[in-house]
Amino acid sequence: MQLPSALLEQAVNEFSKLPGIGKKTALRLVLHLLKQEPEKVEAFGEAIVRMRNETHFCQRCFNISDSLLCTICANPMRRQDTVCVVETIRDVIAIESTQQFNGTYHVLGGIISPLDGIGPDQLHIEPLLKRAAGGAITEIIFALNPTIQGDTTIYYIQKKLQPSHIRITTIARGIAFGGELEYADEMTLARSLQHRMPVEQLKV
Amino acid sequence: MQLPSALLEQAVNEFSKLPGIGKKTALRLVLHLLKQEPEKVEAFGEAIVRMRNETHFCQRCFNISDSLLCTICANPMRRQDTVCVVETIRDVIAIESTQQFNGTYHVLGGIISPLDGIGPDQLHIEPLLKRAAGGAITEIIFALNPTIQGDTTIYYIQKKLQPSHIRITTIARGIAFGGELEYADEMTLARSLQHRMPVEQLKV
Repeated sequence: MQLPSALLEQAVNEFSKLPGIGKKTALRLVLHLLKQEPEKVEAFGEAIVRMRNETHFCQRCFNISDSLLCTICANPMRRQDTVCVVETIRDVIAIESTQQFNGTYHVLGGIISPLDGIGPDQLHIEPLLKRAAGGAITEIIFALNPTIQGDTTIYYIQKKLQPSHIRITTIARGIAFGGELEYADEMTLARSLQHRMPVEQLKV
Repeated sequence: MQLPSALLEQAVNEFSKLPGIGKKTALRLVLHLLKQEPEKVEAFGEAIVRMRNETHFCQRCFNISDSLLCTICANPMRRQDTVCVVETIRDVIAIESTQQFNGTYHVLGGIISPLDGIGPDQLHIEPLLKRAAGGAITEIIFALNPTIQGDTTIYYIQKKLQPSHIRITTIARGIAFGGELEYADEMTLARSLQHRMPVEQLKV
């Protein structure tokens, strides 16, 4: 694609570095910005740069934060004794949007995946163990994606936590609401049979 | 969607103002940027702001340009006597990528569309008429989308150009290469019959 302006081309190149954005989409976005008021485009550029430069990771849970502690850790209404362990910030946002969890989080920053060269040391596992050793935590809920790597990560951390009186749980696995048995994989179906639950619990 | 950081939220909001980008995609893009080096994110922001602030419209053809004349108008190898009239910069890029056109362009900035409140005065029609009156143009090729508004625009400009010795043409209309007759609309099919052409012209 030949572009008539070097500056335009540079902006298109920058946009097309983003995941899922090809050259054509990038051009569409850039031409859209070209039609906006200069102040609006400046606000756009500034918001992105500030977001990168001025956000931190929460000292306690590694969630993204504007200050030392994230809004969840700093909230006295949230239970500090219940910690939900997740892989990414995106998972925090997903769980928060259910409005069903009133504890705090711990963002690992990934899962143990030797094939991708990610071992325990690359993750925020050590700070989690320290938090647990502090004695204020009564339950750790693992909310990792149900894959072999996810299970390995849970197993590894659980081992490290022993001996301890902390209750260690994982989110329920089974057939998703609205899902169809016919299309469920064998592993999921087998586990959902194995962990069958009393019908009374279905009440919403 | 509740986000744990106001700065993150602002960046997500800015991204989701772009066409075709929803909140979830915006979050994915922003979290991607968050993982990049600060310098890279600054380069991204700067490229966008510079593109908006430092590009101009070409004085002659209203294509986007880094200087007073765009690279096409300023190129002595391009025929200044043949002008291709298009709706947007995107159309210039599309025609340029065919590498079949060696003339210059004139970007109208839209087409006459009374329903959207766009009349001839909102478009760069007057400058086109002035270019034509200059006497250096021998052919004007309309490359507008084949719609009622496109045809109206051609008709309007053609009227304004009379009397003149300039040859006025439009890009061929018919069944697209690889298209299927079965799915062509009646108007296209009727026109393609009406403007049937000698088989010899099919040679590529």
